[in-house]
Amino acid sequence: MQLKVLRDPIDDDKFHDECGVFGVFGHSEAANITYLGIHALQHRGQESAGIAALDAGQIQVHKTMGLVADNFDAATLARLPGNAAIGHTRYSTAGQSRIENAQPFVFKGVAGPIAVAHNGNLVNAEELRASLEAQGAIFTGSSDTELILHLIAREREGTAVERIQRALAQVRGAYSLLFLTQDSIIAVRDPLGFRPLVLGKLRGAPVFASETCAFDLIEAKLEREVEPGEMVVADASGVRIVQKLPPQRSGKCIFELIYFARPDSQVFGRSVYRTRKELGRRLAIEQPAEADVVVPVPDSGVAAALGYSEQSGIPYDMGLIRSHYVGRTFIEPSQSIRHFGVKLKLNPVQHVVKGKRVVVVDDSIVRGTTSRKGRS
Amino acid sequence: MQLKVLRDPIDDDKFHDECGVFGVFGHSEAANITYLGIHALQHRGQESAGIAALDAGQIQVHKTMGLVADNFDAATLARLPGNAAIGHTRYSTAGQSRIENAQPFVFKGVAGPIAVAHNGNLVNAEELRASLEAQGAIFTGSSDTELILHLIAREREGTAVERIQRALAQVRGAYSLLFLTQDSIIAVRDPLGFRPLVLGKLRGAPVFASETCAFDLIEAKLEREVEPGEMVVADASGVRIVQKLPPQRSGKCIFELIYFARPDSQVFGRSVYRTRKELGRRLAIEQPAEADVVVPVPDSGVAAALGYSEQSGIPYDMGLIRSHYVGRTFIEPSQSIRHFGVKLKLNPVQHVVKGKRVVVVDDSIVRGTTSRKGRS
Amino acid sequence: MQLKVLRDPIDDDKFHDECGVFGVFGHSEAANITYLGIHALQHRGQESAGIAALDAGQIQVHKTMGLVADNFDAATLARLPGNAAIGHTRYSTAGQSRIENAQPFVFKGVAGPIAVAHNGNLVNAEELRASLEAQGAIFTGSSDTELILHLIAREREGTAVERIQRALAQVRGAYSLLFLTQDSIIAVRDPLGFRPLVLGKLRGAPVFASETCAFDLIEAKLEREVEPGEMVVADASGVRIVQKLPPQRSGKCIFELIYFARPDSQVFGRSVYRTRKELGRRLAIEQPAEADVVVPVPDSGVAAALGYSEQSGIPYDMGLIRSHYVGRTFIEPSQSIRHFGVKLKLNPVQHVVKGKRVVVVDDSIVRGTTSRKGRS
Amino acid sequence: MQLKVLRDPIDDDKFHDECGVFGVFGHSEAANITYLGIHALQHRGQESAGIAALDAGQIQVHKTMGLVADNFDAATLARLPGNAAIGHTRYSTAGQSRIENAQPFVFKGVAGPIAVAHNGNLVNAEELRASLEAQGAIFTGSSDTELILHLIAREREGTAVERIQRALAQVRGAYSLLFLTQDSIIAVRDPLGFRPLVLGKLRGAPVFASETCAFDLIEAKLEREVEPGEMVVADASGVRIVQKLPPQRSGKCIFELIYFARPDSQVFGRSVYRTRKELGRRLAIEQPAEADVVVPVPDSGVAAALGYSEQSGIPYDMGLIRSHYVGRTFIEPSQSIRHFGVKLKLNPVQHVVKGKRVVVVDDSIVRGTTSRKGRS
Repeated sequence: MQLKVLRDPIDDDKFHDECGVFGVFGHSEAANITYLGIHALQHRGQESAGIAALDAGQIQVHKTMGLVADNFDAATLARLPGNAAIGHTRYSTAGQSRIENAQPFVFKGVAGPIAVAHNGNLVNAEELRASLEAQGAIFTGSSDTELILHLIAREREGTAVERIQRALAQVRGAYSLLFLTQDSIIAVRDPLGFRPLVLGKLRGAPVFASETCAFDLIEAKLEREVEPGEMVVADASGVRIVQKLPPQRSGKCIFELIYFARPDSQVFGRSVYRTRKELGRRLAIEQPAEADVVVPVPDSGVAAALGYSEQSGIPYDMGLIRSHYVGRTFIEPSQSIRHFGVKLKLNPVQHVVKGKRVVVVDDSIVRGTTSRKGRS
Repeated sequence: MQLKVLRDPIDDDKFHDECGVFGVFGHSEAANITYLGIHALQHRGQESAGIAALDAGQIQVHKTMGLVADNFDAATLARLPGNAAIGHTRYSTAGQSRIENAQPFVFKGVAGPIAVAHNGNLVNAEELRASLEAQGAIFTGSSDTELILHLIAREREGTAVERIQRALAQVRGAYSLLFLTQDSIIAVRDPLGFRPLVLGKLRGAPVFASETCAFDLIEAKLEREVEPGEMVVADASGVRIVQKLPPQRSGKCIFELIYFARPDSQVFGRSVYRTRKELGRRLAIEQPAEADVVVPVPDSGVAAALGYSEQSGIPYDMGLIRSHYVGRTFIEPSQSIRHFGVKLKLNPVQHVVKGKRVVVVDDSIVRGTTSRKGRS
Repeated sequence: MQLKVLRDPIDDDKFHDECGVFGVFGHSEAANITYLGIHALQHRGQESAGIAALDAGQIQVHKTMGLVADNFDAATLARLPGNAAIGHTRYSTAGQSRIENAQPFVFKGVAGPIAVAHNGNLVNAEELRASLEAQGAIFTGSSDTELILHLIAREREGTAVERIQRALAQVRGAYSLLFLTQDSIIAVRDPLGFRPLVLGKLRGAPVFASETCAFDLIEAKLEREVEPGEMVVADASGVRIVQKLPPQRSGKCIFELIYFARPDSQVFGRSVYRTRKELGRRLAIEQPAEADVVVPVPDSGVAAALGYSEQSGIPYDMGLIRSHYVGRTFIEPSQSIRHFGVKLKLNPVQHVVKGKRVVVVDDSIVRGTTSRKGRS
Repeated sequence: MQLKVLRDPIDDDKFHDECGVFGVFGHSEAANITYLGIHALQHRGQESAGIAALDAGQIQVHKTMGLVADNFDAATLARLPGNAAIGHTRYSTAGQSRIENAQPFVFKGVAGPIAVAHNGNLVNAEELRASLEAQGAIFTGSSDTELILHLIAREREGTAVERIQRALAQVRGAYSLLFLTQDSIIAVRDPLGFRPLVLGKLRGAPVFASETCAFDLIEAKLEREVEPGEMVVADASGVRIVQKLPPQRSGKCIFELIYFARPDSQVFGRSVYRTRKELGRRLAIEQPAEADVVVPVPDSGVAAALGYSEQSGIPYDMGLIRSHYVGRTFIEPSQSIRHFGVKLKLNPVQHVVKGKRVVVVDDSIVRGTTSRKGRS
């Protein structure tokens, strides 16, 4: 008997650079609220999760591999007291899936501890890392975020805001960042606004999140986006803008709208769901087809398929069913099954597609392997 | 800080009596195929999973709490050699969630070991248990299935088929059963046909499953239903019917078609998906509504909502988004959030439902708590 | 690189049939006291441990693989309320090391639940098992103890004492048994008295244990041995003898005194330590030697070596040091090391043995492999 | 029912500053040999264990909490290929028991990766840490060893030996250090020689260890101590001394000889066992007693008690038995037992001590709580 162990059979042709960040300042249940916030952002990263909470000038952190719901319980949260907290969910490719890379990171800064939660990737990470190592910096993990920590730790003068600003002046790339300091949360978004970040209010307490769906769960009110290039501070005296860089060309990541974000979120000021539907309508105009039925690749292709259907008048139907029990590794019998990985994830509904001309709408085609298999 | 730990916030007003069974006879990778089979039936039970494999007259079994993908690996399957195997996935209410109730059960019968995988509930379980205990039987767990084992163990005469028949003559209720004996798989379905069971072929080897979606994954061909009251034996000489009880009134469980089964399956000889759509059409006729949009409660309400939309002409749209990361327990902040359990699971898409007259289609209303919350 | 994984490199030429049993009746902290009792008896079995506690006529049980100290905590014990409890620690050879064999066993008898903890082996186990299976009994594990349960379960008439007596009349072999019934603890020892069992008092509450060292830890007072063939009941009305079989030839297991029991215990009415020392003295008379030093194989050879030294006048010294960190499996480099298993466990003190004539005293020689290795 | 959970009931009045280090260069099974080496040094630290192996200029490391035997298996070792390796076992007080402090540490130096295993404590740790943090250094854990890493990382010029020398010139305190570089092992001992370190040969390959008992297990030959203030390099061209500081007053830690080291080891050029016996003899001279028996507190008091007995002529006997199953936490019944922690660990043998005048010999008295309890 010969077994093949497949690593990640659900490889889905997609980029996975997203993470989720959440923060709340001035709420008596800060860690609990943050737990809910990152739970709602779980779709942005299932590799690791963490919460850092501020109590009496000290920061406690709990980080784990795996899902929020599986790895945080009442006892864990009870060990994270305080009125301010930030949280993080992380996606990562297999090679970097290590607890050392789980966030938030905490370090002891010149004026007390600072925790950081980061969504984004730096483009000058390699040269920054080489330069810092040449100066004697020691890195624990392999994430870009650790670079930002080291840059801040090297800034010895000025306020936390000033040190963060000088540090960020040295990096190029994408970042939506939440810093938890001894007395504040500092939120920053890179000048291109590559990754989303929103600001809301929960019974008076400022909250920050990657997507608005986190606000919906905790019944917070969306105030506005943190703007590209903007730095916002939430502390005992309220929320204020401490930096507002001049407008640049926008660098918003289109994949946020296409498949990273939850469809019930607003991202970059737009409804994700509406955007996907509009893309489907547009596809129907640009790529019309003679067909009997429009079928989405669930779940992320649903909205676009509905848009295609509405525009084209071709009926929409659920011709593919997705299994939600697919894990990261899978065992295939030695007598191999055609397109096994896809089959495991998606199965056609014979009644819907048999003998029909079918338009299959996926969210996007990056490498196209899934859809190729679907075709054959 | 006060925390409330919620047990099963996803309580969904529904019955959970289903389990999944799968079997294959005469295949060199019996355990691997069974692994795939119960993986495809994972939606029928996430509490525990098990595989029993027959090798040289001996039966090895591996059972675990939790999901198939998380708890079976190549090493586990390598310890289950042989050409025949049966598997089981189990749903259970919290109180009975114990490894002692995980299936398949194995016992040493008068003519060698017998393993059993059972989907169903007996109506005379309590009196049978009392009667067996009065005769000195010792029970390990609390499942009805153990009763069937004891009844068979007490039959000392005749073939395995005869002993099983005499044992089953004493039980009343629902059962789709797979027995693995020293030289065969015996499949039986109760005379009312309450739970489904289908027979297929995988490159010549007979396969059995609760639903056809298991056949799709392994590329087996559906042959037919095991009929209500029918007993089928698969052994070295092929597949044969050994019992065919006269037709009774049908007792097929409607919830199989409504939400237990996967929509891509055929159950009771019908397409699950088509049945749900027809129920939605019928609902549109019986309960017409003036509305702007038809919205399903995902995932099980999708097909009925599409049927309602097609029949009524009211556009279909995905106005509710379901989180797939909800676990079995959850922590709610002490300052409670309205309809927290529902919110965790379902979030409306503002763009779709705001200011609209909405028809929300769920698969069914048993106790109605979810939909009540949804309304308020 | 080639690795050899050694299973149980500490194989020590010895029989391992011992288990530890403990019970207490009428104490408000019954489970806690039992936890301490089996902790003190840990040397009698490290494979699994369990406690059954009686509360309001119901019996709760917690059983685990591994050590008492690692697998019981305050939360576990809090789930075992009540005024009476029995406990068990189990040794077993690798093949039978399964949770199904962990004790105490609990079953629902004709007059309520009964739990049992057993130390001993039956000599007619095989025929009893065959006979019971022929009558339709279903066994979960492979231990002899389950047989006793089934025999009791089949007795339908009379009191618990009577049913246990009739059941035990059918077994031959060694047993020191503690039964926890709905209102009592019943302690029995086989007529040959193969395994030890003592009765004591803890602030008025009767306690039972395999060895007196369990009484020392909880500060209970030793009353006396439960005699061979005796059955004792502890219930609300006190302790009474309900059976006293006529004296037979003694069958006390000599290995209890030689190496099973803790040296600080009294077993079979004798000080274990004194017995070992006397055996050493006797050895010095029967096997005198011209030597410079007497060295024990620690820990169980220490007392006999001291006796040998005292008798012979040859000085005693610790020429061998034992590692207490040896686990059950071990990895040996491919370039094998001579007598690796022994080396891992015992290392000579050069200063003591170099150039000397050494008498090495082990507790016993069963197969002799360790001492052979020691010699070469 | 009220439970008291005791943290570390075996608190034994002793300092626990010791760790174990081991290294081998130029052996085809470097990780396997290192595994055996740290296994033999397990008594020097049970909190965490780790191995770093050098293969093709890259260093792989595996670190875990807990015991070597429980946490390293064949698969783990197979992922540590290469011809050179260092290992570490760590003791730590409860508060610092974190995987972040487990060794060896690895960092990317200016000329490739360096791993370090450290036994010792620095006296200027606090000021070094403050100074490094003021320069922007970020620390992951709380161990002194991390300071040494940072000091080396800041040295940008010269060879690895030179950079390590300049770094160590800044620290004051105790260190026996093994560095694994891209092409060598560098061993250093502080000028006072506070902690032990020995050099040996295993079939031509140089080996280093805290104690000689590690050499005994792998059948390596002891060559000599690494001298206080000495730095030794083992690389492809053999072993050479690269630094030999002028002799200082000796600062050898007396507790190594008294209870840290294994009695079968040689430490600081002396037999540990012989030293302990001599201390016992000396005690008999300085503190003579009229008594019937000399009893050791096992295991570390055994040698001194034998010395006392030999010198005084009072017979030696094992009047106290030690349990080897005591864990780190323990649950005491609410009705508390006198000197519970001590009782759990040590129980008197009545036969030996009852009615006798007893000299009890422990290895040392630091705070005296155990012996006080023993007396009362």
